[in-house]
Amino acid sequence: MLFGDRLAAAVVAAGSPLCVGLDPHLERLPAPLRERFAGRTGASFRAEAGRAVAEFDALALRAVAGVAAAVKPQLAFYEALGSPGLAALEQSCALARELGLLVIADAKRGDIASTATAYARAIIHPDGPLAADAITLSPWMGMDSIEPFLGLCRDHGRGVFVLVRTTNPGSAFLQRHGQPEGATRVAAALAELGAELVGESGLSSVGAVVGAFAHQEARALREQMPAAWFLVPGVGAQGGGVAEALAGVRPDGLGCLVNSARGVLYPPDGLEDADPVRAIRERALALAASLLL
Amino acid sequence: MLFGDRLAAAVVAAGSPLCVGLDPHLERLPAPLRERFAGRTGASFRAEAGRAVAEFDALALRAVAGVAAAVKPQLAFYEALGSPGLAALEQSCALARELGLLVIADAKRGDIASTATAYARAIIHPDGPLAADAITLSPWMGMDSIEPFLGLCRDHGRGVFVLVRTTNPGSAFLQRHGQPEGATRVAAALAELGAELVGESGLSSVGAVVGAFAHQEARALREQMPAAWFLVPGVGAQGGGVAEALAGVRPDGLGCLVNSARGVLYPPDGLEDADPVRAIRERALALAASLLL
Repeated sequence: MLFGDRLAAAVVAAGSPLCVGLDPHLERLPAPLRERFAGRTGASFRAEAGRAVAEFDALALRAVAGVAAAVKPQLAFYEALGSPGLAALEQSCALARELGLLVIADAKRGDIASTATAYARAIIHPDGPLAADAITLSPWMGMDSIEPFLGLCRDHGRGVFVLVRTTNPGSAFLQRHGQPEGATRVAAALAELGAELVGESGLSSVGAVVGAFAHQEARALREQMPAAWFLVPGVGAQGGGVAEALAGVRPDGLGCLVNSARGVLYPPDGLEDADPVRAIRERALALAASLLL
Repeated sequence: MLFGDRLAAAVVAAGSPLCVGLDPHLERLPAPLRERFAGRTGASFRAEAGRAVAEFDALALRAVAGVAAAVKPQLAFYEALGSPGLAALEQSCALARELGLLVIADAKRGDIASTATAYARAIIHPDGPLAADAITLSPWMGMDSIEPFLGLCRDHGRGVFVLVRTTNPGSAFLQRHGQPEGATRVAAALAELGAELVGESGLSSVGAVVGAFAHQEARALREQMPAAWFLVPGVGAQGGGVAEALAGVRPDGLGCLVNSARGVLYPPDGLEDADPVRAIRERALALAASLLL
C-alpha cells in the first residue's frame, strides 16, 4: 500500500487530519518527570532525561491514539540528548506503530546520494532503527538528494515531505527568490517525481511541507501539486490558524495533514496538567474538532 | 579563540589543509571488524556494527592525527546504526578532541529557531553529547535558521559551514536559480553574518561548503566571502582534483579545508589493508603532500 493511501486511510480512521508533533521540551515535561533529571549534568543528565522523554512520549502517544492520524517527532530534541535520546526515539516510534499512529520523522535531511541512502536507512527503512513511515527533506541540494528515498516509497509504503514553503521570518530569502520563485520550482519538480507514486486515493507518496501562513500561496501550490499531501506545521503555538492550515485542502477534503506540537502536548505557560494523559487527549480532541471541514 | 583562528592554527600545525571524512561504510571496514556483525540482523546487528565503527574510527583517528587538521564525520552513517551508532560517534568525537583534531560534524541541518537551538545543543554545544567544533548547515529556510548557531560561535569558539555551492548532479537546480543565483545570494548573506566573527587570522567562524568542481565559481565566491573558510568536499573518491579543490584559496595560502573520506580511509576496491593504521596514515600523508601550495 502506497504512503498516500496509508495516510488517507489514517486520516479517515481518526476522523481528523491532525498530526501531533513530538517536541520534547524538557522544561515543559510534567513535574514528576522533570525531577528525574533535575540537577544532573553531562552523560547522567542525558541518560535520565532520555528515559523521561520516552515515558512522556508513551503517555502522549496513548493520549492521542485514535484521535490523531499521525505523530511527528522532531529529531533535534532527541539528538540533543545524544544516544539515550535516540534510544528514546526508537522506543517511541515502535510504540506509535503498535498504537496505529503513522510516524513522520521531522529530520529535514538533504545530502548527496550515498549519504541520502544512509539517512533513508537511518530513518524510514523498515529494518532500520526508527522505521518511520515518512521523513521531511530539504531540496537545496537538488532532486538527486530526494530520489534515493523514492525506492522505499515504491517498495515499502514510505513517504517524503519536501520543504517547499515555510513561514519562519527568513523563509522568503530563497523560497521566494527568482522567477519562478524557488518554492514554485520545487513544487513543479515534486509533482513530476510524485506522479508515479499516486495511490488509489489520488494522493502521492511525495508530499510537501507548506506552512499555515501561506494562505494564497497554499492554493497556488495545490494547483501545482494536486496529488501531494501537504504537511502543515505551526498550528497553535506557532500562531497559525485553522483556516490557513486548511487553505490547501482538496475538493475531497483530504490533502492537508495539520501539525500541532506544543498546543497539544503542554498546558498553557505556568500551569501543570493534573492528569497529563487526559489533558493531552482533551487538547487533541478540541483541535481535531476544529479541523473538521 | 574564534573558530576561524582555531582552524587556521590547526592547518598550520598539521602543515596541511587536509580534513579526513569519517564515512564508515560497513562493507569497507577491515575484515576482522566486518566479522563482528556479519550475519546479524536488527538491534544485535546495530549494536555490534556500532562497536566496530567506533574501533575503526579509533584506528583512523590515530592514523591521521598530526597529518590532518580536522575530521568530518558524516552523521548519516552513524544514525543508520541507531543509538549504538550515535554512541560510537560520541566516542569518536571525544577521541578526536584528545588527539588534537578539530571535528566538523557533517549534519546539513536547517530548521526554525527553536529546533535549530536544539540541533546546536545536540551537535556543537560544549556540554552536548558530541561537542563538535563546527557543523554543516543548509540555508533553504533562511538566515534565521543559521543565526541560532552564532551564539556558540561567539562564546565557545564554534563554527558553521553553510551549503553554498555543491557539485552533485542536481545541485544547480536551486543553487544556480535566479538572478543573482541562489548561491550568490547565500554567499552575500554569509559574508554579512560572518563579518563580526573574523579572528586575528582574518578568517571567520562562518564558513561555506563550496564543491571542488566549481572552479571559476570558487574564485567568484572567494571575492564575495574573503574571510570565509571554504569546506571543500569530494576530493579523491568523488572525483575532484586538487587544483579545483584549492581554487578558492586566499593569497595567504589559507581559506580552503579540503576533505577526503574514502580516498584516505579505504584501500582501492577489492583490496584489504594488511596494516590499516599504517595504510591510512600513508594515504593521508600522500594526499596532504599533494595539497601543499
